[in-house]
Amino acid sequence: MQASQKQQDTGGPSGSKGTPRIVIIGGGFAGMMCAKQLRRAKGSIQLIDKRNFHLFQPLLYQVATGGLSPANIAAPLRSIFRSQKNVQVLMGTVVDFRPEEQLVLLEDGTSLGYDYLVLGTGSTHHYFGRDAEWERMAPGLKTIEDATVIRRRVLSAFERAEKSTDREEIRRLLTFVIVGGGPTGVEMAGSIAELARQTMRYDFRAIDPRDARVILVENSKLVLDRYHESLSKRAGADLVSLGVEVMNETRLAEILHDHVVVLHQGNPQAIPTETVIWAAGVKASPLGRKLAERLGMAESLDRGGRVAVQSDCSLAGHSNIFVIGDLANFTTPDGKSLPGVAPVAMQQGVYVGKRIAALIAGRTTGPFEYWDKGNMATIGRSHAIVESGNMRLTGKLAWLAWLFIHVLYLARFENRVLVLFQWFWNYVTRNRTARLITGAEEAMIEPKNGDNS
Amino acid sequence: MQASQKQQDTGGPSGSKGTPRIVIIGGGFAGMMCAKQLRRAKGSIQLIDKRNFHLFQPLLYQVATGGLSPANIAAPLRSIFRSQKNVQVLMGTVVDFRPEEQLVLLEDGTSLGYDYLVLGTGSTHHYFGRDAEWERMAPGLKTIEDATVIRRRVLSAFERAEKSTDREEIRRLLTFVIVGGGPTGVEMAGSIAELARQTMRYDFRAIDPRDARVILVENSKLVLDRYHESLSKRAGADLVSLGVEVMNETRLAEILHDHVVVLHQGNPQAIPTETVIWAAGVKASPLGRKLAERLGMAESLDRGGRVAVQSDCSLAGHSNIFVIGDLANFTTPDGKSLPGVAPVAMQQGVYVGKRIAALIAGRTTGPFEYWDKGNMATIGRSHAIVESGNMRLTGKLAWLAWLFIHVLYLARFENRVLVLFQWFWNYVTRNRTARLITGAEEAMIEPKNGDNS
Repeated sequence: MQASQKQQDTGGPSGSKGTPRIVIIGGGFAGMMCAKQLRRAKGSIQLIDKRNFHLFQPLLYQVATGGLSPANIAAPLRSIFRSQKNVQVLMGTVVDFRPEEQLVLLEDGTSLGYDYLVLGTGSTHHYFGRDAEWERMAPGLKTIEDATVIRRRVLSAFERAEKSTDREEIRRLLTFVIVGGGPTGVEMAGSIAELARQTMRYDFRAIDPRDARVILVENSKLVLDRYHESLSKRAGADLVSLGVEVMNETRLAEILHDHVVVLHQGNPQAIPTETVIWAAGVKASPLGRKLAERLGMAESLDRGGRVAVQSDCSLAGHSNIFVIGDLANFTTPDGKSLPGVAPVAMQQGVYVGKRIAALIAGRTTGPFEYWDKGNMATIGRSHAIVESGNMRLTGKLAWLAWLFIHVLYLARFENRVLVLFQWFWNYVTRNRTARLITGAEEAMIEPKNGDNS
Repeated sequence: MQASQKQQDTGGPSGSKGTPRIVIIGGGFAGMMCAKQLRRAKGSIQLIDKRNFHLFQPLLYQVATGGLSPANIAAPLRSIFRSQKNVQVLMGTVVDFRPEEQLVLLEDGTSLGYDYLVLGTGSTHHYFGRDAEWERMAPGLKTIEDATVIRRRVLSAFERAEKSTDREEIRRLLTFVIVGGGPTGVEMAGSIAELARQTMRYDFRAIDPRDARVILVENSKLVLDRYHESLSKRAGADLVSLGVEVMNETRLAEILHDHVVVLHQGNPQAIPTETVIWAAGVKASPLGRKLAERLGMAESLDRGGRVAVQSDCSLAGHSNIFVIGDLANFTTPDGKSLPGVAPVAMQQGVYVGKRIAALIAGRTTGPFEYWDKGNMATIGRSHAIVESGNMRLTGKLAWLAWLFIHVLYLARFENRVLVLFQWFWNYVTRNRTARLITGAEEAMIEPKNGDNS
């Protein structure tokens, strides 16, 4: 205890004066992989995150629809780094930077000194200027709390419909509008349709859950429009076969307490509903802007708030400050900006980890190169689309590929077996065991500003 | 849809005019077992609960200490009664009764008519007249939300200690006071001690979690003092061996934001702490009082608010109204009042189910008789005490008995295999995979009065 206390005072986990101090902000794919890659580096690492866990975001929609529990897709950062003694995990909120003193400032008034700084705080929802109004009405899906809020709203709508005798109210309660036809929107729409039509089919007495309308609103002509057209079309057809109403070329115009207004090819249409889920826009974490401003390079931010980085993921003129993952705007040599997806974040994390280790050792590295292994999206419990180079898969085979890849990634965490088991169990029983409506009462116990938030 | 809608209008799930209407309030052990027992009865049953799930409360402390996920110990009531077509599950809050019209009134303004009424809404925390002050400072352990609040506070205390450089603050943050040496208090104390000393032993860099003080405050001379003295003593010794400081003959006098004051044999002592967990008092659900008042029999309530019931669990003069479980004050022929434990609730549920079925069929039954199979409490992950008749077990064997019984009960639910698997996994790895700090942010998304509360 004495000894470790002293180490803390001298600024790092197992470091001492003179050991390079590496501060990594954000324990997502980018930050976590970076810290892992540094396991043999001669540096003392502080990994700071607002939460005490790493979240496997690609499966968050499963939590939102009761298929998995939060703990199935989250691993405590302390467990992940238990045996990596050069990493100290800190739970805290970074609020500012003082680059001239090489300091990161935390909300609680403390600060962390760094020789190398890595920022990977990702992205958050973006309601196109309507944040204040729409955020409460149409929760997005970025955090565990988002997922449990959506789970509560979706399940509560069925519960309220079962008690209602007003046909219009029942119709409204059983209408679910998902805004955005990207991977998250497609996964949510498919999952809610399956929940209603399969999982809960025999659970009610007054209503028939199969009457539920699941409406996916998408701006462009096809869902998943970044994929090859044949895959996008197939995904749309898969959704329809699950009972989802896909409204392409449709834009959300208004969210009110009992209906939404959409513009289909410019024509307004009101859809009575009380459950709207946001899967449309994301914007970069505000810490990117804060850092850029403090470095006098706010002009390096793009429209979405992402920070432009060099070919080594560092900021121009600051070779010891890196931005990685969804927060980074990395332009490839052929002029394309890399998308905000997990593989990019992970590869950048690994790269920057290697680069810092090399710099500490007095060596250097080549530029970051993204190896695009392909993309995949899942539609319900047995369909997916996969695109990798010229290979394109659909249907069951694609779904198996999707499952394999996701289990493989999860295999890095200790709860891998549990998730696989839970999946298998749900698959066999067609059930979703995590269908709990929780939280409303919690808000009554905990104040708005939780004692530990 | 048409057909089931009509049934709803005539007052029940698969009933029609003339079919006896049975309303069961509360989906805990008592109400759930009652509804199950009525599966072949010629009646239409409405089971109403504030939540959409049945909770296996005996394992709630595992959620509070990160060993299990909420969904592991909760099963959606709709799943449980999916194939029992004479049961309609309703999620709603009962606020009043109109016995003269045989109506139950819900918060949303609707009402349910009954021919038979079963009330089994259990108990809630009781802070001996200090509810308003103490409830926020010292959460109890009755609901899933309680458990996640406690989990957040306990884990956050370690997180804050890791960041602190103030020795006194660290000491205070690493001190956990559990009030009440009954089964819940003993389980919580043992679990927190194991969490600190085993699970998280290698997780921190600045603090040593083994320095955590876990203090169990108990009024009487021994913990678990309803058990045979030899077992109580053994439980106390087991706790000490896990590193728990057991303070017997000690009463909580004050809870303040950074310390508590206890009276040990009358002498005041201040203990600096920020985490206090309440496992001391319970009182009956207020619906018991409401019902008794409406029936003009408020004098039948005991000090804890329990409703005195007849030998058939009905209320005096109201042979069609039953109160069961923790809410009932059942006096055995030899003058003892049955304790508020799960086996009593389950047996009363089964009995009243049988009795209502018999009454509908024009038959009758004998009085309720409690078959006391014994009691058990667990202390950490490999110790327990078991008492059954003249048989007394301690240590590992008792723990295996405890595990067997609990898995057996859970076996009624679909998530039985998952829990067993999670347990086994945690046991082998000495890990707790559900160590998530969540919820504070949720309070910011959802208003105090949630849209669906």
